[in-house]
Amino acid sequence: MSELPKKEGNFFEWYNEVLERSQVTDKRYPVKGLNVWPPFGLSIRSLFDQTLRNAVGPIGYQEVSFPTLIPETELKKESEHIKGFEAEVYWVTRGGNTPLDINLCLRPTSETAMYPMFALWVRSHKDLPLRTFQICNVFRYETKSTRPLLRIREIHFYEGHTVHPTEESATRQVQEDLGSFEQVARSFALPYLINKRPEWDKFPGAHYSLGLDIPFGDARTLQVGTVHHYRDNFAKPYGIQYETEDGKTAFGHQTTYGISERLIGGVVGVHGDEKGLVLPPALAPVQVAIVPVPGKGSKEAVEGAARALGSTLSAGGLRVKVDLSEDRPGAKYYAWESRGVPLRIELGPREVEEKAATLADRFGKKRKVPQAELLSEVRAELESFLTTLADRAQARFRDAIARAKELSDLKGPKAVYLIGWCGKEACGHKVEEVVEGGLLGTIEGGSPADIVQGEAPPCIVCGSGPSRWAAAGRPI
Amino acid sequence: MSELPKKEGNFFEWYNEVLERSQVTDKRYPVKGLNVWPPFGLSIRSLFDQTLRNAVGPIGYQEVSFPTLIPETELKKESEHIKGFEAEVYWVTRGGNTPLDINLCLRPTSETAMYPMFALWVRSHKDLPLRTFQICNVFRYETKSTRPLLRIREIHFYEGHTVHPTEESATRQVQEDLGSFEQVARSFALPYLINKRPEWDKFPGAHYSLGLDIPFGDARTLQVGTVHHYRDNFAKPYGIQYETEDGKTAFGHQTTYGISERLIGGVVGVHGDEKGLVLPPALAPVQVAIVPVPGKGSKEAVEGAARALGSTLSAGGLRVKVDLSEDRPGAKYYAWESRGVPLRIELGPREVEEKAATLADRFGKKRKVPQAELLSEVRAELESFLTTLADRAQARFRDAIARAKELSDLKGPKAVYLIGWCGKEACGHKVEEVVEGGLLGTIEGGSPADIVQGEAPPCIVCGSGPSRWAAAGRPI
Repeated sequence: MSELPKKEGNFFEWYNEVLERSQVTDKRYPVKGLNVWPPFGLSIRSLFDQTLRNAVGPIGYQEVSFPTLIPETELKKESEHIKGFEAEVYWVTRGGNTPLDINLCLRPTSETAMYPMFALWVRSHKDLPLRTFQICNVFRYETKSTRPLLRIREIHFYEGHTVHPTEESATRQVQEDLGSFEQVARSFALPYLINKRPEWDKFPGAHYSLGLDIPFGDARTLQVGTVHHYRDNFAKPYGIQYETEDGKTAFGHQTTYGISERLIGGVVGVHGDEKGLVLPPALAPVQVAIVPVPGKGSKEAVEGAARALGSTLSAGGLRVKVDLSEDRPGAKYYAWESRGVPLRIELGPREVEEKAATLADRFGKKRKVPQAELLSEVRAELESFLTTLADRAQARFRDAIARAKELSDLKGPKAVYLIGWCGKEACGHKVEEVVEGGLLGTIEGGSPADIVQGEAPPCIVCGSGPSRWAAAGRPI
Repeated sequence: MSELPKKEGNFFEWYNEVLERSQVTDKRYPVKGLNVWPPFGLSIRSLFDQTLRNAVGPIGYQEVSFPTLIPETELKKESEHIKGFEAEVYWVTRGGNTPLDINLCLRPTSETAMYPMFALWVRSHKDLPLRTFQICNVFRYETKSTRPLLRIREIHFYEGHTVHPTEESATRQVQEDLGSFEQVARSFALPYLINKRPEWDKFPGAHYSLGLDIPFGDARTLQVGTVHHYRDNFAKPYGIQYETEDGKTAFGHQTTYGISERLIGGVVGVHGDEKGLVLPPALAPVQVAIVPVPGKGSKEAVEGAARALGSTLSAGGLRVKVDLSEDRPGAKYYAWESRGVPLRIELGPREVEEKAATLADRFGKKRKVPQAELLSEVRAELESFLTTLADRAQARFRDAIARAKELSDLKGPKAVYLIGWCGKEACGHKVEEVVEGGLLGTIEGGSPADIVQGEAPPCIVCGSGPSRWAAAGRPI
């Protein structure tokens, strides 16, 4: 197979080609922007979902599943929300040949599907906090050009929705959600920034919105998640009320927490290289590929040993593939590398004789270990691979971010510029003018945490203070 | 809480009430027939999905995920298929305020979404057989009155789709699918019949259709699954062709295998009783509820012991809940019973002293076991509970089925009548007239296998032979 396009400078050519070759998604479906998940890609997606579930279960979220279709009457109850979505929802207007009495939209997100039910579920302060999430597909009538995993029309989506007795309780939830995101990002070896979006760029209906952003591709940024505080903005139109301990009636305060398949796109784009996919162990359908390298006359012994080691590792809870196909070892190495498998085990007659195995990680680092210690050695190696991956990603993350002192600095080659911003709308819009779209917001945290240090400089536009650290960049 | 309606004679009153009280589904969503899965119901659904995955993985199926929306042009390629579905598909006609160039339907099933892609995926005989499945939601614009899990508008659906080089290979697949269904039905303790649907009642576009039917409710039947043989009926219009070993081009032969959330409804309806849900261990979100029954002054010791036993069972891979809520033990027993938990462990000061635990199954059978053997005893008890459940269900299954010798017998109180049928359409329609709708088809098997024995009697309508055993009943 021909070489991949260079990643540097041709990012999207490289990106599309990697997804196609490794069969993460198939974009040949007859409607543009609606993609198919072949078996390999769907395995990654299922591991992705499981990582999210594992991160939110311990903070009290329970999984639910709501209908895909939302009646127009419910969608329109919160006026800001509908303004934000009306241009991009798909409308079902007919059942068979019969026009529907009330049009139904395909959920673009599920606030307006869930909240009429929350109004029934929440009665008393004892029912709060209510923490639910669903993993589903949402739909956006996307008119810009589509990109696999990043900008599509049917989107695989995690959405957490909570109800709290007070604004403060909802604020604490926002912090817990950020904590669970940190755990997810660590599993995926992804550094990120938490940016509080400017007032004019928050989620339609929100009190405030936090975007989780990463530098991505050729000097762009990618929003891979969001956490919103709604106050009682939705509770009021949807009637989500409860009886307080002293018998009064109060509206709930709400938050949401959203992560989509974009985050998978983020993993592909950040970690992948000239050989193809590079997957963190948590997302790898095959964590360890065992490749027998038989010499003359040793095929049976070597393959037998490979199968035995495969069983040991599978029994230890690892996802293992023993590759007994007819291809030559070099072709197998190439195939597993291009699919992002973190670890390969090479097993030749020499290794069999020595009761050893050679471990090779996705970046080519090799070492020989005794078979008797294989399971613990492989576990250690996967841990260490995740660290390597995180270190590499962090180095590039730091390299993609720079401080800008003057507006003209924003024209440079970095993905994200750190600036001082006084918070005034006029100054914000000026920044957006220069960077073509993106004042990502004031920086509220991230990982690594030391990206911004010390007091913020004066506003990059008007020079006045006090100002806050903010991030500017061009979102995909 | 008030008593449940009697199941006998008021089946649907009982059924709706059980689903509502045990929170399997919530039907108060503002669009009729679109139901919500609360946490408890969704856990059951996830276990259901996992049971299906476990049954089809070993026979070579791989999981995929296709778009929800199908363009009208693809939906209409197979002429019988579209005739069967055009009255019941939902149509998306607008994106935002823009009319779509080509209308999109919400998949009523995914043949027409998958097969254009299969035409790209299948090139050579080496790509066959292709076995894929997806677990997704499908949509039907249902105009009859809706019923939770049984007749709804957004349906949780398992669909297997295969492509084979020859008709015979596809026929073998049908048998393998039936084998995997038998495994699923055994996990759920459900007896069933396999009926080959009459020509006029087969799936639109199929060569033949097998329905998996169970007696259900007050003398009705429920189709809980289907397996279809398509021959090359779809391969031709969708261009699913391959190069044979000798370099010729041939069309693939296809099968599908469908199971929906109806099967969960089947489990609820068949096993439930006057106390509420009864769940087979495979579908129980909580398989074992541990209820401490402290005497005076022993609360701490008893609860400590309960927690310790809970950890032992969880570590053994069981789904366990230690109920430390404030309610009285009797109230806890009632709550867990109504949610269908197969096994309860009662633990009082006496048991703690004796290092024992009392096991009580959902039907009230009790025995005391030593704590040291708890895990193996509980496992054995869950096995034996499944057997009890299967025996009870089988007794009722036999009781719901009778042989009919004359047309007037079909007016009796049984859910299914076994008849001789010569195969002629006129005779079939006559049977349908008498039983109001249901000639389920010729009996091709089922479990238990001895429901029909010996040669079939002459046709119940025309008296001629040779005839075949067939089943008549009124489907829900």
